[in-house]
Amino acid sequence: MEIIIKPPLGDWGLLKQECFEANMQLPKLGLVLFTFGNVSAVDRANGVFAIKPSGVPYEELKWEDIVIMDFDAKVVDGKMRPSSDTKTHALLYKTWDDIGGITHTHSTHAVAWAQAGMDIPIFGTTHADHTHQDIPCAPALSDEMIKGDYEHETGNQIFGIFEQKGLSHKEVEMVLLQNHGPFTWGKDAAKSVYNAAVLEEVAKMAMLTLQINPNTPRLKDSLRMKHYERKHGKDAYYGQGC
Amino acid sequence: MEIIIKPPLGDWGLLKQECFEANMQLPKLGLVLFTFGNVSAVDRANGVFAIKPSGVPYEELKWEDIVIMDFDAKVVDGKMRPSSDTKTHALLYKTWDDIGGITHTHSTHAVAWAQAGMDIPIFGTTHADHTHQDIPCAPALSDEMIKGDYEHETGNQIFGIFEQKGLSHKEVEMVLLQNHGPFTWGKDAAKSVYNAAVLEEVAKMAMLTLQINPNTPRLKDSLRMKHYERKHGKDAYYGQGC
Amino acid sequence: MEIIIKPPLGDWGLLKQECFEANMQLPKLGLVLFTFGNVSAVDRANGVFAIKPSGVPYEELKWEDIVIMDFDAKVVDGKMRPSSDTKTHALLYKTWDDIGGITHTHSTHAVAWAQAGMDIPIFGTTHADHTHQDIPCAPALSDEMIKGDYEHETGNQIFGIFEQKGLSHKEVEMVLLQNHGPFTWGKDAAKSVYNAAVLEEVAKMAMLTLQINPNTPRLKDSLRMKHYERKHGKDAYYGQGC
Amino acid sequence: MEIIIKPPLGDWGLLKQECFEANMQLPKLGLVLFTFGNVSAVDRANGVFAIKPSGVPYEELKWEDIVIMDFDAKVVDGKMRPSSDTKTHALLYKTWDDIGGITHTHSTHAVAWAQAGMDIPIFGTTHADHTHQDIPCAPALSDEMIKGDYEHETGNQIFGIFEQKGLSHKEVEMVLLQNHGPFTWGKDAAKSVYNAAVLEEVAKMAMLTLQINPNTPRLKDSLRMKHYERKHGKDAYYGQGC
Repeated sequence: MEIIIKPPLGDWGLLKQECFEANMQLPKLGLVLFTFGNVSAVDRANGVFAIKPSGVPYEELKWEDIVIMDFDAKVVDGKMRPSSDTKTHALLYKTWDDIGGITHTHSTHAVAWAQAGMDIPIFGTTHADHTHQDIPCAPALSDEMIKGDYEHETGNQIFGIFEQKGLSHKEVEMVLLQNHGPFTWGKDAAKSVYNAAVLEEVAKMAMLTLQINPNTPRLKDSLRMKHYERKHGKDAYYGQGC
Repeated sequence: MEIIIKPPLGDWGLLKQECFEANMQLPKLGLVLFTFGNVSAVDRANGVFAIKPSGVPYEELKWEDIVIMDFDAKVVDGKMRPSSDTKTHALLYKTWDDIGGITHTHSTHAVAWAQAGMDIPIFGTTHADHTHQDIPCAPALSDEMIKGDYEHETGNQIFGIFEQKGLSHKEVEMVLLQNHGPFTWGKDAAKSVYNAAVLEEVAKMAMLTLQINPNTPRLKDSLRMKHYERKHGKDAYYGQGC
Repeated sequence: MEIIIKPPLGDWGLLKQECFEANMQLPKLGLVLFTFGNVSAVDRANGVFAIKPSGVPYEELKWEDIVIMDFDAKVVDGKMRPSSDTKTHALLYKTWDDIGGITHTHSTHAVAWAQAGMDIPIFGTTHADHTHQDIPCAPALSDEMIKGDYEHETGNQIFGIFEQKGLSHKEVEMVLLQNHGPFTWGKDAAKSVYNAAVLEEVAKMAMLTLQINPNTPRLKDSLRMKHYERKHGKDAYYGQGC
Repeated sequence: MEIIIKPPLGDWGLLKQECFEANMQLPKLGLVLFTFGNVSAVDRANGVFAIKPSGVPYEELKWEDIVIMDFDAKVVDGKMRPSSDTKTHALLYKTWDDIGGITHTHSTHAVAWAQAGMDIPIFGTTHADHTHQDIPCAPALSDEMIKGDYEHETGNQIFGIFEQKGLSHKEVEMVLLQNHGPFTWGKDAAKSVYNAAVLEEVAKMAMLTLQINPNTPRLKDSLRMKHYERKHGKDAYYGQGC
């Protein structure tokens, strides 16, 4: 998307625009209904991130409405209340210092797997092109965590499942929260949205696969690593190498 | 939606327009086919409501076609025959004096649950964000009720299931009628349409969840109430607080 | 659809236009892919019907391409080869002298029931609003019929299942052909297309219903007849009475 | 699609345009997400084919970006890196000297069958209109083949399943690769895209058929051959005979 005439942006204008444009991809990709979902974009140099305001429908959202937060989830700039999931974003940025954007949706098939409380098994190369592992489903938070700082603890629950399974957040840029839905991340906000759309498609394919053959085995190692490394390894030859 | 040039509206013009615009959301949201479905909007001060005329395709519907009814389902204004479901709307408005709009659709997945004759179990936070209870399915009317004042009795069947299950219509703004389909309501017509779309999405997610894991348990209490109160409790922090 | 400037139509121009416009509804309603499907429209006064030419993509179809046939499936007017299903249409028009239009599609869910070789059970009021019977699935033709006059015999197979089940083609305006797909009819071409879309939706709802509850019983008689008569009986009160 | 004003095309311009236009059909037909999928078009006289560059989103693709390759998968013209699946295309063109276009997608339902590792059974006439055989699923490559010249060996795996099952690539213009997805071909690039869309629809219909009746038998021989020969035999009478 090319912006021909740029309005005067004021403070954090470019960061707000990046965040706004990434959020507006969610309804276009069919990943959200009404006000569901949120995307954030980070500015590492200034230690802040931009996030969608809470409960605003996408068709009414303007780039000026985007809220700027620090990594302790305090408002730095903006007149609106930030997404209710902001503390999860803040903790992910604070802990994983190499990610540039985060997306949370309630996309239909990813939510179905989260509600079923199951990891999405790696069944094919569409999945392996993006990660060589099952998509992990972090268990629901304990009652104490829920009654405590819920959205902050949601971040901790994500770290917990990655630690328990020995996963790298650089190799697996997506997770399901049991009973809730997916969080995805990436080098920037646009990549995190891309990952959210890929996850929804992989979730749908895996569900359909089990309808056809409930005993489908996981993808064998050689094919799993071949496809991942075709796109991500040091000898990757997918794409234009940039 | 902003109306720039308002036509001269005559009697009940604003009410008819509110009702018209809410009805026109149904095909946009993919909730209806042809003439299926209907939305009404109430005017409490005058003791009337506006409703879609019966059997008119949405692409031909004009705001002037909307019919004005009183709470005993008698026509107050309008040249067309009102929706065949009008008596159900009338009884709901008469009995629940704090609702402002009602929507009835035959949306695909909500109808599938109604045909299956089952409540939609609360499996996740998408559901809990909107209500903390299973979506109740009222049983089919008795043969006597069907042969009697069918659409009026449909309203009574809805009250019956809410009483039996001890539900509040303020906390559960949606119901399935067995073998038929969903009715939803809210503070105004637009909110009842919003609820109809949420119900269809929740119905689809619940169906898919059972495909993946037929033994999925219901959402635990702590998470169920946390998400509901995040949006609806006195300490709600979702949205812009207005 | 209103035609503002009518081109000079020549012979059969109005009939060809009715047929053309009904055919063009099929891709809009999502009922066909590429060249699949065909709609015909009858002119009883002249003993002819208009039908889509064979194998023409909808985006290339022009009203002048429509072919005029008599009830023995002989070309009366038109330069193109008519639909390969023309003899089925001809026999239906010849035998059922009160129908005005016929539609054949390969719509996804109706085909799935046809491939499964099963009647679509009446599970709800969406179905009963249109017919009070299960949608019958006529068995595959015998090898002799297939090697003989296949498309003509397809018509006979439809009459066979209606006779065997004691159905009226005025009350049940749709049928599945096992392994093939649906044929629908009505008072005119537009109504037959409407019925094709309703059938696809009812087929989808019934499939989903069985996913949720494989033991769903058929709709009880009182509700089945109530909804059918609300729209079709002598005391019908659905629609604007015209 | 008619090109009114043709830009000066330079070398391979017409071939690149044919390839470009066929690729652009993939997102329109809902067969691809982001950069997934690729279509190629052959020029037999010059012993080359045109193919989509690797990893380029469809909305950014220009006809000038298309890459020209020889049948040994060496670049003949073009500045971009060709699709990572190019060697599979090259081997198919080299071995089957009568095909004019090849399409590879990750379309949802075709991938689900590939992940399930199963041939798509012939259940109905929608399938038989296009081929009289089950759609074969070639087994996953051996670890040696994967570690070797993977995309070249993918072509050999396709030949292997056709040989093993005694299939003709003229009668069966589509195949699934286990765990991966479909490849389709045809007399030109546009026909290979058409086949990719038909395969996705047939895959969806077959999946739904098994949901309704898990014991659905395959289509009987008489109907299988009747429909195939109606469109493809020497006495074919579907279409306009051109």
